[in-house]
Amino acid sequence: MMRRGLWLVSRFGPCQDLLRPPSLKSQSILHRPTARLAHRANFSSSTDALVSRFCQKHTDMKDYALPNASWSPDMMRSYNEFLEKTKDEDWIKLPSFKSNSEHIQGLKLPAGFMATSDKEDYRIFTRCIEKEGQGYEYVIFFHPSKKKSICLFQPGPYLEGPPGFIHGGALIALMDETFSKTAYLSGHGLFTLSLNIKFKNLIPLGSVAMLKVEVEKIEDQKIFLSCIAQSLDEQVFFAKASGIFLQMELEEDE
Amino acid sequence: MMRRGLWLVSRFGPCQDLLRPPSLKSQSILHRPTARLAHRANFSSSTDALVSRFCQKHTDMKDYALPNASWSPDMMRSYNEFLEKTKDEDWIKLPSFKSNSEHIQGLKLPAGFMATSDKEDYRIFTRCIEKEGQGYEYVIFFHPSKKKSICLFQPGPYLEGPPGFIHGGALIALMDETFSKTAYLSGHGLFTLSLNIKFKNLIPLGSVAMLKVEVEKIEDQKIFLSCIAQSLDEQVFFAKASGIFLQMELEEDE
Repeated sequence: MMRRGLWLVSRFGPCQDLLRPPSLKSQSILHRPTARLAHRANFSSSTDALVSRFCQKHTDMKDYALPNASWSPDMMRSYNEFLEKTKDEDWIKLPSFKSNSEHIQGLKLPAGFMATSDKEDYRIFTRCIEKEGQGYEYVIFFHPSKKKSICLFQPGPYLEGPPGFIHGGALIALMDETFSKTAYLSGHGLFTLSLNIKFKNLIPLGSVAMLKVEVEKIEDQKIFLSCIAQSLDEQVFFAKASGIFLQMELEEDE
Repeated sequence: MMRRGLWLVSRFGPCQDLLRPPSLKSQSILHRPTARLAHRANFSSSTDALVSRFCQKHTDMKDYALPNASWSPDMMRSYNEFLEKTKDEDWIKLPSFKSNSEHIQGLKLPAGFMATSDKEDYRIFTRCIEKEGQGYEYVIFFHPSKKKSICLFQPGPYLEGPPGFIHGGALIALMDETFSKTAYLSGHGLFTLSLNIKFKNLIPLGSVAMLKVEVEKIEDQKIFLSCIAQSLDEQVFFAKASGIFLQMELEEDE
């Protein structure tokens, strides 16, 4: 595992603008000439290899994307339906660990990137609330060949925005998290470059929503994704979003 | 305080599209003809009246936007600087309660809107993490006449995205929260209609960032806001965002 270094914020590869102090007047990484990024346009690992590494069969790390007593009958039913699809179809249930350091265990962050400590209690934001059922309850299923995901999501009372309904930011955060796992497994997408979201209906706390994420295209080291959030019966449309992720390959640790 | 009703999701006023099952083909509320919204274009309360109601001097509710032992010297210094400005200038430190039900205490939600219970532990998403310093530490200062806000933000280790850095969704959620308080106090902005964000640099966990939010314009019952997130010394630009909020007046409770 990684050790804590200094708060190093140095430059690295094609992602340097993400970490160095930039100027507001400087060209955004989104608009940099393709030529500057082309030397990293091919990534060595296939989606199958990434998925195989991501979904380790033998691990002692806790998987938070498993049913617990707080899951409602609707959540359980949908979970079981998708679990069935992992047997016959090409769907895979993704594990969800406490920290992204656990997800990328054995992989090296880019040179100069800040590593985190084993000793401190780091958590992926969408797993920040410990009490079952109070915050984020979700599970992501991924379809490698179609490069799409389904996230089943039961928001608890700690995700409040308008009284009784989910906070817009809590929904976006889970969209971003589902984007990020999909982007990584579909083609080394690591960093969110931009997100756009339009809200249409509010999600009641305690209900179950479904986020449908798809990779739209991969171009110039950028992965373009879309997301639709709706009710399980697809009768209520909650929000739609799009996101762009930067591709970056992580090397094997020594 | 409000009592829990059924999961009522009925229609109300100009915000009906936010709660009724809409069609994906139907016109978004963002694109509805101005005429349909014009009858609610004038709102009765001034910003001063809204601020006065929002910042009650005598309340037994806990204000989470006050210093605690986890605040770093940088966070404390910036907080004290802005606190000084509340004495001489037109800045106001906003309180931050556990739930939005507390923020709108004594006000009535639109007819048919779902009310929450006193008995359940509802929390504004950005106050979802109990342990001081582990999640969101932030305070918002608001400038009523200029309709702008500053949010001082110290992200803890539970807001992780890339190892050691903040999750993009955690930053957006706080931008949305700062937008929402600013939109409400500036002109009854209640619901997020859309958000756009572009990321430039990652925010290290444990550091302090500053979100600068401004109301750009108010038009057709919509409040348009912008946000820049940067380091305290303004040398590192983290992200910029824009948001649109729907105006809606809450009436006095009986």
